[in-house]
Amino acid sequence: MNRPRPIEYASATPQVREVFDDIRATRGVPDVNNFWKYLAADPALLKRTWETQKAVLAPGALDAVVKEMVYLAVSVTNSCEYGIACHTALARKAGMTDQMFTELMAVIGMANQTNRFADGFRLPIDEAFNK
Amino acid sequence: MNRPRPIEYASATPQVREVFDDIRATRGVPDVNNFWKYLAADPALLKRTWETQKAVLAPGALDAVVKEMVYLAVSVTNSCEYGIACHTALARKAGMTDQMFTELMAVIGMANQTNRFADGFRLPIDEAFNK
Amino acid sequence: MNRPRPIEYASATPQVREVFDDIRATRGVPDVNNFWKYLAADPALLKRTWETQKAVLAPGALDAVVKEMVYLAVSVTNSCEYGIACHTALARKAGMTDQMFTELMAVIGMANQTNRFADGFRLPIDEAFNK
Amino acid sequence: MNRPRPIEYASATPQVREVFDDIRATRGVPDVNNFWKYLAADPALLKRTWETQKAVLAPGALDAVVKEMVYLAVSVTNSCEYGIACHTALARKAGMTDQMFTELMAVIGMANQTNRFADGFRLPIDEAFNK
Amino acid sequence: MNRPRPIEYASATPQVREVFDDIRATRGVPDVNNFWKYLAADPALLKRTWETQKAVLAPGALDAVVKEMVYLAVSVTNSCEYGIACHTALARKAGMTDQMFTELMAVIGMANQTNRFADGFRLPIDEAFNK
Amino acid sequence: MNRPRPIEYASATPQVREVFDDIRATRGVPDVNNFWKYLAADPALLKRTWETQKAVLAPGALDAVVKEMVYLAVSVTNSCEYGIACHTALARKAGMTDQMFTELMAVIGMANQTNRFADGFRLPIDEAFNK
Repeated sequence: MNRPRPIEYASATPQVREVFDDIRATRGVPDVNNFWKYLAADPALLKRTWETQKAVLAPGALDAVVKEMVYLAVSVTNSCEYGIACHTALARKAGMTDQMFTELMAVIGMANQTNRFADGFRLPIDEAFNK
Repeated sequence: MNRPRPIEYASATPQVREVFDDIRATRGVPDVNNFWKYLAADPALLKRTWETQKAVLAPGALDAVVKEMVYLAVSVTNSCEYGIACHTALARKAGMTDQMFTELMAVIGMANQTNRFADGFRLPIDEAFNK
Repeated sequence: MNRPRPIEYASATPQVREVFDDIRATRGVPDVNNFWKYLAADPALLKRTWETQKAVLAPGALDAVVKEMVYLAVSVTNSCEYGIACHTALARKAGMTDQMFTELMAVIGMANQTNRFADGFRLPIDEAFNK
Repeated sequence: MNRPRPIEYASATPQVREVFDDIRATRGVPDVNNFWKYLAADPALLKRTWETQKAVLAPGALDAVVKEMVYLAVSVTNSCEYGIACHTALARKAGMTDQMFTELMAVIGMANQTNRFADGFRLPIDEAFNK
Repeated sequence: MNRPRPIEYASATPQVREVFDDIRATRGVPDVNNFWKYLAADPALLKRTWETQKAVLAPGALDAVVKEMVYLAVSVTNSCEYGIACHTALARKAGMTDQMFTELMAVIGMANQTNRFADGFRLPIDEAFNK
Repeated sequence: MNRPRPIEYASATPQVREVFDDIRATRGVPDVNNFWKYLAADPALLKRTWETQKAVLAPGALDAVVKEMVYLAVSVTNSCEYGIACHTALARKAGMTDQMFTELMAVIGMANQTNRFADGFRLPIDEAFNK
């Protein structure tokens, strides 16, 4: 079997179901998305990843919508199709409007462009940035 | 001459000085940073890049500090040393606190990790994300 | 014609067939996979790439399964869909078990996460690592 | 303060020292490397990252040296200078010989080359890889 | 609505139509490609992006076909499926022959391979390259 | 020994010297650059890499300067500091003028920006690009 397979709730072990239940309760969704069904192939990896995600995306100094937009910015820069689809949806759910989305895309595009200029022109770092 | 060279204000053409002046006024800084001094090798590229940057980073639906943190997230994901140094400083200036910085790093790290899981497990995109 | 096209054995030149025959014999497969059929558009590129691949993946200080897992780790990090599909299959064939696969994914994810922390926190390299 | 700063053991809180002590004991080193000193700016991030790293790199279906070489392969592909320096050292410590190192580099280089061929030639995935 | 939607000419505002008309006239095509239809969600982003593209790809010291091949090289290295499809077609239209295409792929592959060797072997930059 | 070490001509084996001699003769330089001195740690890898490089960069359907500029575009997109320094110098030697350099940078920047827009807006590929 070459292609990884998802594990559905119905056939999951109690250890996996416990994580699935927590994801569903935390996010208020009837079923977990594919990401978690595939990671369930390794229950310890599933549990660790969910606990990190839960801690990292919990309310803090940054708003939920800001965290999701940063997540989306990384996914776009990595050209990760699943991450883009998933975190566009999660950012929308957290309050990202149409205008916020296009402004976000504009910043992502700009940053990717100027990062290459910085490397291509072999820029030395300004003193002020090292303080 | 293999390595690109910066153009300082004193030796710049009027066309380049005009852009430098606008950057200094917009950002309230006594001198432009290296990025602009190197791009000045091509005055049209300098002008175009600054005008795009000014429009993209202007106040809008996203706060200045959010835009700078997104810029930093992209720079980190691209492993762009100059971009990281520059936009950490600009985000600080726009109000990023120590806690916001470490929360931002945590989200960037998490996203880079789960993007690879998504690709490595060959995840199909959930129906709900395509609506 | 915008999209590249594959060259099948039946319509291949003797020069291309010779490479296809060697791939089939070396790997013990009835037909070569798409990668080689597309590269055949340039017989010299096909031959050079196959010879490098054959030399690099031949038995040495690293086991075949280790080499294939490293290949997969690179493909995941590059977000290369074809490379991921192909080298998951080749790693399986070389002996990668389910547990080895999920442990590999865990390392890949961890490395991608901590690479970004290293860049984002602008870490100086420890003296010990330069010896 | 634009540039992140390290936290040394002498000035660390008990919570941070506990993690530093565990890293030193687990790895048998007199001091932790810079990576951990900078992450200590956020004690929760430090603790979470170390616990994940410890679990992921613990003995399992893959040898310690294989895990470190995969870590190095990812770091090279991400062009992460710190990760390359650190995990070359850790892989050496885990048993990577000169020959294993150059074979590893050869595989990494080959994979990065053929990933681009796969994308550039727009390869459809072979049926066999989807089973 | 999670997935971005295209804006067709028939339902576009006068501001968007003006940009679409200029793209059609400049490229001599009956309709704009999807890239522009999606960017039209933000008319200012659309206009800015098209004006930059038009200026950057205009005749200059580099031929149109060279610029399109460089565009393709970047798209392949970023693993950007749309960019690869689009700029293969535009490069073909600008005169890229079959042989030029396979030579281009060979250079892209070689560069991606040797970039990783350079990082993995931790190469110091030669004095001569800094002059 | 954690850090790889270069092999100088004086202490090289006859097998390595043979490759170094060919590089010096082909490029008309008194000494090889660091890239080759480090790869010499594995004489077979050195020989294979040089032979591929020589074949790929030889005169063909693309000019030497075009090949070097594509090499530079890939190195910039990969954020590979050594590759950027080396291939800026080689492109200069092959005839890249100041204006060609800044036009090249403009195209690289533009492509990196629009690649992200293409992924972020989740663009479907136009029918015409698949023909």
